[in-house]
Amino acid sequence: MDKVNIKKKFNLFKEYWTPKILGELNGNYVKIFKAKGEFIWHHHKHEDEFFLVIQGQLNIKLRDREIVLTAGEFFIVPKGVEHLPYAEEEAHVLLFEPKAVINTGEASSDKTVENPEWL
Amino acid sequence: MDKVNIKKKFNLFKEYWTPKILGELNGNYVKIFKAKGEFIWHHHKHEDEFFLVIQGQLNIKLRDREIVLTAGEFFIVPKGVEHLPYAEEEAHVLLFEPKAVINTGEASSDKTVENPEWL
Repeated sequence: MDKVNIKKKFNLFKEYWTPKILGELNGNYVKIFKAKGEFIWHHHKHEDEFFLVIQGQLNIKLRDREIVLTAGEFFIVPKGVEHLPYAEEEAHVLLFEPKAVINTGEASSDKTVENPEWL
Repeated sequence: MDKVNIKKKFNLFKEYWTPKILGELNGNYVKIFKAKGEFIWHHHKHEDEFFLVIQGQLNIKLRDREIVLTAGEFFIVPKGVEHLPYAEEEAHVLLFEPKAVINTGEASSDKTVENPEWL
């Protein structure tokens, strides 16, 4: 593979909450997505999920508190923990998670992306 | 866990080529290290290794080419591939790799860190 410039990859799509794959290693994907507005409450039964904000601000509601991430900050949502990501303004986020993860976890909605595309 | 501010973590140590652990997920560690000068040729027999530059420039020599990474760029070194990271000026790098990885891989040197510390 070649190196990947993350910001350039964000210029290749506009839609929100649709993860794109940038890389693969050890059974995990490196993905990015654009956030704006509210996602849905969901959890991932077997997988921890790493969120790193590249630009803007992403909020992650948990049932007992809220995490506020700005550029250069990350949070790991442990498996089984319900979470609701939202962003008031457009935010750019990098994910790191096992290949099996589907964005809406155990929930299913019009935001579900079963087979993310490679960028 | 709480959120992690990557730049603040880099303020907590000065030494080069000593990976520090910032997080754990699905059997992987999120680590950071400061690079300056030359590391050693090595490979990881069973693990792919993700390098994301946070600040500065990191060069990764491969046997057949060289990768030049600046802030916001990443490269995945596939398992088994020999590589030699180096940086002319101080660079700050985030790693993502299975917990079993030792920084010098199959090689052993005075740069080997068997048990990285948590920050």
